[in-house]
Amino acid sequence: MIRTGVQKMARGLCQIMGREISKGNFNTNIGQQMTPRGTLQLPWSSINSVRTMAVLPWPFSFQPRDFSLPNSSWGSDMRRLYEHYNSQCEVETDDGEKKWGVWRRLPSYNRSLKYTTGGVYLSKIIQSKARLFTRNIREQGAAFEYVVFVNKQEQKCVCVFQAGHLLEGPPGHVHGGAIATMIDTVTGTHATYLSGPVMTANLNINYRSPIPLGSTVLLTCSLDKKEGRKTFVSCQVTNTDSSKLHTEATGLFLSITMGHLLGG
Amino acid sequence: MIRTGVQKMARGLCQIMGREISKGNFNTNIGQQMTPRGTLQLPWSSINSVRTMAVLPWPFSFQPRDFSLPNSSWGSDMRRLYEHYNSQCEVETDDGEKKWGVWRRLPSYNRSLKYTTGGVYLSKIIQSKARLFTRNIREQGAAFEYVVFVNKQEQKCVCVFQAGHLLEGPPGHVHGGAIATMIDTVTGTHATYLSGPVMTANLNINYRSPIPLGSTVLLTCSLDKKEGRKTFVSCQVTNTDSSKLHTEATGLFLSITMGHLLGG
Repeated sequence: MIRTGVQKMARGLCQIMGREISKGNFNTNIGQQMTPRGTLQLPWSSINSVRTMAVLPWPFSFQPRDFSLPNSSWGSDMRRLYEHYNSQCEVETDDGEKKWGVWRRLPSYNRSLKYTTGGVYLSKIIQSKARLFTRNIREQGAAFEYVVFVNKQEQKCVCVFQAGHLLEGPPGHVHGGAIATMIDTVTGTHATYLSGPVMTANLNINYRSPIPLGSTVLLTCSLDKKEGRKTFVSCQVTNTDSSKLHTEATGLFLSITMGHLLGG
Repeated sequence: MIRTGVQKMARGLCQIMGREISKGNFNTNIGQQMTPRGTLQLPWSSINSVRTMAVLPWPFSFQPRDFSLPNSSWGSDMRRLYEHYNSQCEVETDDGEKKWGVWRRLPSYNRSLKYTTGGVYLSKIIQSKARLFTRNIREQGAAFEYVVFVNKQEQKCVCVFQAGHLLEGPPGHVHGGAIATMIDTVTGTHATYLSGPVMTANLNINYRSPIPLGSTVLLTCSLDKKEGRKTFVSCQVTNTDSSKLHTEATGLFLSITMGHLLGG
């Protein structure tokens, strides 16, 4: 029972910190992945040759909506890029067995792991109604439509992002804060995938060219370096054929311990 | 008629770029404030001894909801700080006349200036439904509750911000992107107040301590320097008595011309 509880919790941890991680073999060796400092490590080496398994936001037992799947609001660019990466998520071997491809789609839910933190500020009402910032609007296509894919071999990550009409800043264009939100989300997801649970320590964002409202863009993230607890990730936001740079950014993320995660 | 149109447009411009500016004497000398390059200048010197006049998001003729006014979702910290600054917005002279105080509250709406930009991306549907990112949720208290005050004498700006349950990132805490959004909004508003219409060129954000969901924080912005088209603003996000630093940031903003604003 204890082991089952740890396993459930570990699955839930993939959804915390606003990051979205799909892990195929969480059931196998999560115990060994806990360091003496309690840091949950999610090494690339542990996610081979397994099939997709949805990560439930613990302690839910029902299957929540995965917001990263296509819906009727997605435009042609969004669908085309989704298919481009999704088709490379699974390959068939010579003996007919299906295996992971070079890319992996990460599911995305609207609620992080629930537990009691926040002291006096976090009332039960707020806690029960809380929703992930990027998934807080139910109307499809109105706000953030996005799907994240990670590439193990190249240690990079892409996000296809369609910006809805509720994200306006300058007239007809996406708010700088909405762009920063997607950069934080995707660089943070990538850092989590590389280093386990992290907190954002720094974001340095250069806005080069406004993003028209309603358009689809690509966020491409790569690992710059890792130094102890620090993971440095860079990110470029471009149009769908990568010919135009809209925004570029760097992110610094600090690995955190179970103590941090549990409100310590 | 042309002059009337320019005046209406100038009022609307105060709401563009996701900034929120209240200007008292827009009717008086806006013509003279246009430089040969077409940049709309809003100098401090032009906003003395006038009373508040709501800035309508042109071309609307009705009075939209001002989201920066108190509502039933505001907690005690939010109300107390609002009263603290709002009480200093107007002073009574010896002869009974009311004048501006050292602080000024800026109204805040949910739609920027409307006009046709965005080319192929911006459909009429998206254009008509577009809403300012920070004001896109109607449920009071659920997302961004904030009010911005500017101080002419000290060339600084404060924002009282109550973070609702739909802004979650780490469990029980505010999403880094939501914090970046408020920083972009408030530093950009301050830069616009100092230099006229601007675009965000850079945001450099250091996250020091997570912000509990449901809490109220202060964003305090000050001018670092101005160099040609560049306005440098710094910002600190603290708890309500400024004893705890949550986040600090710098913003670089570039002044833009009417051409930029009108899609040129």
